[in-house]
Amino acid sequence: MSGFVSLVGAGPGDPELLTLKAARRLAEADLVLHDALVSPEILDLASTAQRFPVGKRAGRPSIRQETIHRLMIRAAARGKRVVRLKGGDPFVLGRGGEEALALAAARIPFEIVPGLTSAVTASALSGIPVTHRGLASAFVVVSGHAEAAYRPILESIAPGSLTVVVLMGLGSRHALSRLLIARGWKGATPAAVCVAAGTDRARTWVGTLEALGVVPLARRGSDAPATVVIGEVVSAGVAIAAALFPHPSALADRQAV
Amino acid sequence: MSGFVSLVGAGPGDPELLTLKAARRLAEADLVLHDALVSPEILDLASTAQRFPVGKRAGRPSIRQETIHRLMIRAAARGKRVVRLKGGDPFVLGRGGEEALALAAARIPFEIVPGLTSAVTASALSGIPVTHRGLASAFVVVSGHAEAAYRPILESIAPGSLTVVVLMGLGSRHALSRLLIARGWKGATPAAVCVAAGTDRARTWVGTLEALGVVPLARRGSDAPATVVIGEVVSAGVAIAAALFPHPSALADRQAV
Repeated sequence: MSGFVSLVGAGPGDPELLTLKAARRLAEADLVLHDALVSPEILDLASTAQRFPVGKRAGRPSIRQETIHRLMIRAAARGKRVVRLKGGDPFVLGRGGEEALALAAARIPFEIVPGLTSAVTASALSGIPVTHRGLASAFVVVSGHAEAAYRPILESIAPGSLTVVVLMGLGSRHALSRLLIARGWKGATPAAVCVAAGTDRARTWVGTLEALGVVPLARRGSDAPATVVIGEVVSAGVAIAAALFPHPSALADRQAV
Repeated sequence: MSGFVSLVGAGPGDPELLTLKAARRLAEADLVLHDALVSPEILDLASTAQRFPVGKRAGRPSIRQETIHRLMIRAAARGKRVVRLKGGDPFVLGRGGEEALALAAARIPFEIVPGLTSAVTASALSGIPVTHRGLASAFVVVSGHAEAAYRPILESIAPGSLTVVVLMGLGSRHALSRLLIARGWKGATPAAVCVAAGTDRARTWVGTLEALGVVPLARRGSDAPATVVIGEVVSAGVAIAAALFPHPSALADRQAV
């Protein structure tokens, strides 16, 4: 009886967007340690497992990273099949690398099961391609949580040269707008905020980089995950979204995000 | 009887890394129009469909993009359930946006089914996280196919400030090394080339940015898809890979890529 840990990406929220491997690991798991934002429908796939939330939510105290490591290691050492389930992909701003190194140091066998990351999928589910022939052949992904981290990167990039994707970007939307316009990006550059993509609460705000700088926060959106996308690709996305979502509500919320 | 087109990402190659939705769409399809690099195991999931390769391979003439549009539209107009199956994700350098716009213009109903993109997954399957606390909180994704497109972007980015991911980067590995070192990146910056990630021919070269500039091409690797990853995250990846792949062959091919 040998324990094993799978570091699994749950993708954006829709259970249909799990990988076959992720669904199989959940079905076989003895213990699932999951982020707060993983949907109940996905957790239900782990029908025979003990489930334990270890994620942080805005404004609430969270379990320390070292505690997560200890819980994984202890359960695997007792022979359990452990799934560490993260929203999106474990290796995109998910601290999956730290957890992998902790497992390696403890000599616990483990694997990586990638998931769909919001860096690409949040906009795709809104109809917006991160690259599009003639508009952008490259994209940069930053976290909106720490201005000290994203500022030097976005200040160095040539204005308009690629698509900018900001994960966890809701709170920094005004600062992002000011920073990029100050750097020389046109205020008319199309921009989008994809809120709760891949869930049944999904909605997309579309406007310009200038408007992003003043768009107010919808009360209901305040704790939803949001991805900001800035660049000419958003204009292609608007045309694609009009066909994908003929009902106007999909792109309706232009007053707030 | 109404036709429908699903623009589906096949992910990196391993059928287990398809999404549940992609597997379902393949099982229900009447016609699958697929890229050349999609694996036979994945195509076998479309057990009742007619399958037609439309992708390009290095050095061979490829079907024109407009022909792909016409094939999709004609089949859907005849009531077929069409899957347009692409390696990776349809919206990351996959021309999915163009195909979506063509379908929208023809008033054919369609959907986007995202897939795992090599931009994140090629390195993850080699053990390398694109972000890692203390090493990088951001990454940029460019295509290695067109130097005119990636050069101004990589020249503008502050050296060492994020992880650089180059899709289809095998042919440009020497030029990338020269460009980044000339821009001020340290020659000792860790670098990796992830070849055929997610397939049973997967292998990873690991070295420095300086060594990337002279690494020869393994004959067998010449037409495999390859993702180049440059940045300090590669050092975390080496430690993770040592635990993931205890047999040394996984990181063995240090002489050529």
